[in-house]
Amino acid sequence: MSFNKDFLKYAIALSETSSSAGHGGPFGAIVVKNGEIIGEGFNSVTSSNDPTAHAEIVAIRNACARLNSFQLDGCEIYTSCEPCPMCLGAIYWARPDRVYYANTRYQAADAGFDDAFIYDEIVMPPETRSIPMIHCSDKAAEQIFEMWKLNPDKTLY
Amino acid sequence: MSFNKDFLKYAIALSETSSSAGHGGPFGAIVVKNGEIIGEGFNSVTSSNDPTAHAEIVAIRNACARLNSFQLDGCEIYTSCEPCPMCLGAIYWARPDRVYYANTRYQAADAGFDDAFIYDEIVMPPETRSIPMIHCSDKAAEQIFEMWKLNPDKTLY
Repeated sequence: MSFNKDFLKYAIALSETSSSAGHGGPFGAIVVKNGEIIGEGFNSVTSSNDPTAHAEIVAIRNACARLNSFQLDGCEIYTSCEPCPMCLGAIYWARPDRVYYANTRYQAADAGFDDAFIYDEIVMPPETRSIPMIHCSDKAAEQIFEMWKLNPDKTLY
Repeated sequence: MSFNKDFLKYAIALSETSSSAGHGGPFGAIVVKNGEIIGEGFNSVTSSNDPTAHAEIVAIRNACARLNSFQLDGCEIYTSCEPCPMCLGAIYWARPDRVYYANTRYQAADAGFDDAFIYDEIVMPPETRSIPMIHCSDKAAEQIFEMWKLNPDKTLY
């Protein structure tokens, strides 16, 4: 599929809905498959008390529920802003083909959002981040991974 | 608060529950506040058809629902594995004080998970990633950010 400006405009309209109605930040996203919108979302962090309710996360969950699948093969995501690291991660786990975005992480930072800050933090050694992440190795945890590797019945994702 | 091995063991037990019961991958996480578990989760990606249903995401949503808050001030997260970039992003948006983890991203990669791959991809220029992310600048999207900046009634997060 090639870029379709109408889909980007729809995602941007969702971002305006979110902020003007007080749902959350000014962010909207949709998932498109075969020229049809199969999932949509807007930011509802503050209204739903859910810090993970970013537009892309909501749209991906919406599309996956509709497809009864945890994968978005053959799909494209249109979003009003470059995905933050959380949403980028969600996109990699859902595996659509491509993402189109309007505003950048730097414009998001200028509007008061932490996207660029988190991109800076993610490459730091875990224990030195502003939210320290501390490695506590554990034999039982390692053993559970070994059991997973040997399990012939597991569903891969 | 200081590290409490019992909390890590509980998160690891959740990871074993998830994989042995077929909910999803072998990952578990909890949120602790004032010495009490206020949220917990295990991976349920494949059983719920939700690629965002990682242990940390589920635990954060669970804790935030309990607190009626989109922030986890004064909390710590214990997780059976180093957070993937999606979960790291969610942690930054929820803003707990600290994270303790058992297995690493490299051990996750050895067990067949994309965590390390996504950490490698996130630092690449968006358009060159294996899932290309393409910037399509748009005046309307920029204008919505400007309106957000000027809105005196917005809830910051």
